[in-house]
Amino acid sequence: MTTFADRLTDAVLRRETPVLVGLDPRFAQLPDSLTKDLATDDWPAIANAYVEFCKGVIDVVAPLVPAVKPQAAFFEQIGPTGMTALANVIAYAQDKGLLVILDGKRNDIGSTATAYADGLLGPGGTSPWGADALTVSPYLGQDSLEPFVDVARDRGAGVFCLVKTSNPGGGLFQDLVVDGQPVYRYVAELVQQLAAETKGDCGYGAVGAVVGATYPEQLPELRAAMPSAWLLVPGYGSQGGAAADVVGAFDENGLGGIINNSRAIIFAYRRPEFEEIGKNNWQDAVEAATKQMILELDDAGITPRAPH
Amino acid sequence: MTTFADRLTDAVLRRETPVLVGLDPRFAQLPDSLTKDLATDDWPAIANAYVEFCKGVIDVVAPLVPAVKPQAAFFEQIGPTGMTALANVIAYAQDKGLLVILDGKRNDIGSTATAYADGLLGPGGTSPWGADALTVSPYLGQDSLEPFVDVARDRGAGVFCLVKTSNPGGGLFQDLVVDGQPVYRYVAELVQQLAAETKGDCGYGAVGAVVGATYPEQLPELRAAMPSAWLLVPGYGSQGGAAADVVGAFDENGLGGIINNSRAIIFAYRRPEFEEIGKNNWQDAVEAATKQMILELDDAGITPRAPH
Repeated sequence: MTTFADRLTDAVLRRETPVLVGLDPRFAQLPDSLTKDLATDDWPAIANAYVEFCKGVIDVVAPLVPAVKPQAAFFEQIGPTGMTALANVIAYAQDKGLLVILDGKRNDIGSTATAYADGLLGPGGTSPWGADALTVSPYLGQDSLEPFVDVARDRGAGVFCLVKTSNPGGGLFQDLVVDGQPVYRYVAELVQQLAAETKGDCGYGAVGAVVGATYPEQLPELRAAMPSAWLLVPGYGSQGGAAADVVGAFDENGLGGIINNSRAIIFAYRRPEFEEIGKNNWQDAVEAATKQMILELDDAGITPRAPH
Repeated sequence: MTTFADRLTDAVLRRETPVLVGLDPRFAQLPDSLTKDLATDDWPAIANAYVEFCKGVIDVVAPLVPAVKPQAAFFEQIGPTGMTALANVIAYAQDKGLLVILDGKRNDIGSTATAYADGLLGPGGTSPWGADALTVSPYLGQDSLEPFVDVARDRGAGVFCLVKTSNPGGGLFQDLVVDGQPVYRYVAELVQQLAAETKGDCGYGAVGAVVGATYPEQLPELRAAMPSAWLLVPGYGSQGGAAADVVGAFDENGLGGIINNSRAIIFAYRRPEFEEIGKNNWQDAVEAATKQMILELDDAGITPRAPH
């Protein structure tokens, strides 16, 4: 069985870009063509619109990027039919050859964490949701993360643990300093340990880290602190991160980092610079914005290449 | 609109006990009568069994306790049909007069946290899931908790934030000491602030704290540190906590704490002491174990009474 880290490496090399497209179906921002005539509490109808929207994004980005990141919250927001929609979106993206990193930030103790991992992780029919990877939260400690890692290893799946988040208030607890080191560095140590224990051929492990693009000075620090961990970097685009800010996420081969962009790609038709392109078809704006981000990273020198 | 804290206070006073029954449908531990002939990957059929099981527990405990706590992970484990089952269980429990605290340990940044809160919180048809309260995780900081608090306040719902968890490894990050105080005390400070801002008539706020029964010495410390916060105390029963361990969770009126027990109640038919009682009907064992726990707390002096 190929490890998740190896599959991600292959996918990034094949597409020659580390762009990760976030699937955040926000009702109010969906194209009018998908939401007109829908009542805001007609959840089954909204769920259908979410599936149609995400499939529309996936159709465009599948030939361009290695992976997508559905945000569980927006599907959960509309109730059980939203969760059915989420499962459909995951399966559709995989059918189109994309890796799927489910952004759920799940966590719990011991056997309960196993239940999340068992249900959510496992492509190829080994779990009902079948995600290739899942984001998790570290507050509950090592024995809350190990069940995710165990399941991920068994099924060739991956886990991305929050280390340093992109929101303005993320530092409140993450930046508390203990014996000269911020809390997030202690989390990074655990991530590195779990990643080193689960290394694939590519040199990266089943456990990666979420590190926000909004703290560019910490990307090289955390890249160095977790040499065995893929970094999932949110905050590019709408949250303010730019190509120059994320250079530090990568190793010498332009690998080891994936850069997420959600709103600025999927809702590009609402951005003044893509308005004209997306006027008749919102998917044209998705395509243009994806290609623009790929170019921005390439121009900043972020060009993945196979290690020798 | 009555606040969640006031509704919880009323419910605890009405039942004269702070016992919270956890609904953790674990396939392997369900009574044979519900799972025989089910394939372990026939998720829709398992979802039906989970609903039947949870309804069976609810029927027994509704006249005895103020609230139940469904664990989202076990429903999510079996895929989208499990989430439909979860919604059905929440609605059924509320129909029977129980408050429902959904144990999801959700968290995310800003507008994504709002999506979770909007979807999950809000009894009475204001959200598709309709939980009375939700557990959340604090790692992402204040701006990840505030959206939950805002929605909770608007809808008369509640939030329980992880402060000190009951698992053996919970201390890895929670107990790191910063300027003489462990990290969990910094989280407790934020919880107290948010609770104080949202106080109901009962003196408690919309934001409570999760504090494990497995750290009895910390319960009085955290009760004092968060005078405006209800404490949700897991770890009683199967995880080792006993009545004497949880006395510190309560105020002078025997209020301010709810003590969760999942496995030792719902799977009581598997415990040697209740095997005989549950031999013909597993629900009889649920009833006996619930009544035993109520008595244990009462014997330890934990008897809720209306404040003067």
